Amino acid sequence: MRDDGIGSIRRHVNDCLERIDRFEDRIRAFVTFDRSAVLSQVEGRADWFRNRPLAGITLGVKDIIDALPYPTECGTRFRRSTQPVQDAAVVARLKSAGAVVFGKTVTTEFAYFAPGPTRNPFDLNRTPGGSSSGSAAAVAAGFIDVGLGSQTAASITRPASYCGVVGFKPTHGRYSLAGVRGLAPSFDTLGFLCRDVPTAAQVHSVIMAADRVAEPKAPARVGVCRTPWWDMAEAATQDALLKSAVLLSAGAEVEEVGLDDFVDGVRLQAEIMAFEAAAMISPDGDVLERDLSPVLMKMIELGREMDYAHYQKSLRDAAELRRRIDTVFETYDVLVAPAAPGEAPEGLASTGDPIFSRLWSLLGLPTITVPGFTGPSGMPVGIQLLARAGQDEALLSHALWAEQLLPAPKRWTSVGMEVSDA
Amino acid sequence: MRDDGIGSIRRHVNDCLERIDRFEDRIRAFVTFDRSAVLSQVEGRADWFRNRPLAGITLGVKDIIDALPYPTECGTRFRRSTQPVQDAAVVARLKSAGAVVFGKTVTTEFAYFAPGPTRNPFDLNRTPGGSSSGSAAAVAAGFIDVGLGSQTAASITRPASYCGVVGFKPTHGRYSLAGVRGLAPSFDTLGFLCRDVPTAAQVHSVIMAADRVAEPKAPARVGVCRTPWWDMAEAATQDALLKSAVLLSAGAEVEEVGLDDFVDGVRLQAEIMAFEAAAMISPDGDVLERDLSPVLMKMIELGREMDYAHYQKSLRDAAELRRRIDTVFETYDVLVAPAAPGEAPEGLASTGDPIFSRLWSLLGLPTITVPGFTGPSGMPVGIQLLARAGQDEALLSHALWAEQLLPAPKRWTSVGMEVSDA
Repeated sequence: MRDDGIGSIRRHVNDCLERIDRFEDRIRAFVTFDRSAVLSQVEGRADWFRNRPLAGITLGVKDIIDALPYPTECGTRFRRSTQPVQDAAVVARLKSAGAVVFGKTVTTEFAYFAPGPTRNPFDLNRTPGGSSSGSAAAVAAGFIDVGLGSQTAASITRPASYCGVVGFKPTHGRYSLAGVRGLAPSFDTLGFLCRDVPTAAQVHSVIMAADRVAEPKAPARVGVCRTPWWDMAEAATQDALLKSAVLLSAGAEVEEVGLDDFVDGVRLQAEIMAFEAAAMISPDGDVLERDLSPVLMKMIELGREMDYAHYQKSLRDAAELRRRIDTVFETYDVLVAPAAPGEAPEGLASTGDPIFSRLWSLLGLPTITVPGFTGPSGMPVGIQLLARAGQDEALLSHALWAEQLLPAPKRWTSVGMEVSDA
Repeated sequence: MRDDGIGSIRRHVNDCLERIDRFEDRIRAFVTFDRSAVLSQVEGRADWFRNRPLAGITLGVKDIIDALPYPTECGTRFRRSTQPVQDAAVVARLKSAGAVVFGKTVTTEFAYFAPGPTRNPFDLNRTPGGSSSGSAAAVAAGFIDVGLGSQTAASITRPASYCGVVGFKPTHGRYSLAGVRGLAPSFDTLGFLCRDVPTAAQVHSVIMAADRVAEPKAPARVGVCRTPWWDMAEAATQDALLKSAVLLSAGAEVEEVGLDDFVDGVRLQAEIMAFEAAAMISPDGDVLERDLSPVLMKMIELGREMDYAHYQKSLRDAAELRRRIDTVFETYDVLVAPAAPGEAPEGLASTGDPIFSRLWSLLGLPTITVPGFTGPSGMPVGIQLLARAGQDEALLSHALWAEQLLPAPKRWTSVGMEVSDA
């Protein structure tokens, strides 16, 4: 793809289209997908692609983010045909860098918990995680190189871990949210899923208009966080974290970090999100309400019932935790922590538990999920690396370094699919 | 307006419409305004307005913010007819609370410096300030009760001071930006202009879905900031600040605060804004470029030429200043500072100097501009109050207290207009 010859771009785009043709009816990663809109971005544009840093990169866009010519449905029925008039700012940047937009990917309802139809490519009976479900599954299945996503609680980290791909969420506030329909302003952060860390570094550099791409760099000291929720991690996740600690110690000083005084982070994140989402969604309480899922209505009710004074107290407590984590980063360049409780759970009724990301979303830290481990059922399991707020490029540099030391991730192949096809 | 009888709502809406009929052709606060769309929100809806906290409040929406049924043109020619499919999140909340949308108000080009046609109601030969030019002028002239605005450098504070109205900008990140076309994600903040502080407190409580409205409260200690740019303040602004210090000392301990170690804030704000705006606007550098004003192109060029490493350093320095201001707020509940260099400058070619707001925008602090002073030409001059990040409600409480101690603001009357009419 780094070769911008139109021949290789066309071949790559056709490869992606072919995988979509063969497997999308089972994986269901896309909400809207228009083959002719894809081809029109490639045909007759050999000159245009020249010297564009992402020439021919295939891109999926989570369906809370505006991307022409598609509607923005936010995982709901009643927002069908809400047609944006321009691309979200980040989509415009990626297109301008040569990315080819493949369509809109499935999100849970309003990027909360009610799942869409997407299945995990590694096991069609398991969730891909959410809310960036379609982007994660589509990257895992090789439909697209990069899938834009967003995170308010755990919506990039968890699907990345479940689908065995890289998930990058920058510092809260770093990427423009122009053209993105968020859920809770205190946490909403645009990010993306992709196949490997070098791709993440390149995409980040384009979005930020940086004049260079992050290069691998060993951190001086790595903090390993079991987190206060360690008992909720399955053996697969516990093994992944402890093995990571051993592997990373080959190139850096590695120590355990206790985070017992951050235990309130999970509750605070859930409360602030509920209060803000209740204000964002259906302020009128009229038509929409009957169209919302029970799980979303439950959060909205929680938010509506919350005292404003309680919400304000939660915001103050969150600010205190943000100050406290800064002191942790005086000792450690990077933290490593569980990305999800374990393998993707069976069934499609739930997108899994966000427990291992709520604290980090509350703190607004940049995070990158790196795949490489495998659970007892052969499903992928990732770990996440975190850095101090604002240290997005340092995080990517350390992740490039870590990726070399961690096991090569298990890649999805269509073997099982081909058999079930017969 | 707090009486939600449909009769008084209709009378108030008609009063606003009548003022628009008489004076809008000279003030030019609106980009788009549709009388029938206004009336359709009122007629036959007596029941609907009952018990809505903002029943019949008349609202203007800065034209970088989506509000149906109007296009969002961002103060440009080439974005005509970009028709949003839904209201911005904050507009939806205000409408749901009973606000009547009067139309889209003039913004400078992309909310930067190139002015629109709006004139200052107090002197048609002077700028209303920018970028929220139309909202400030429309509130001053009594066309609307509340005008939504946004601030990246000084775009609420400065027009509020120039037009003699209240301008409120919450903590960066507090109000949702869904449906808002921003300029620089590190600073873009939605806010509004209105006639007095009680209205500001009520509107804020609706936007935040709070179960109560801020009440007046004296701060224990007020810090008076001449700021490092004191020599750039005209006598009118210097007098306003020093008189404020005396008046507020009737109810609180008042001290001068030196901010010499924040002098870099102006440069950092300008650099970060330029870099981010260059990435946001016209990433492709194609069609748009020739349609942009020289002043905007100059900032974009500055941003494009900036090293990414320099931008990152500026972000780190900004974070350090944010930590430093927190220690100032350990001593002071509220700061008071100049809102603009002086009276609105003559002429419409410039919206004035943002110097007295850049630092505060960099720091992301909540700020409220309160009118009450008058310059040598009889033009209004305001001062701004600031609080620690996150302390939006405390700021409003202290502003309600301060408003009682400061001089009653000079209100615009149509006398001069009537004469020039003849």
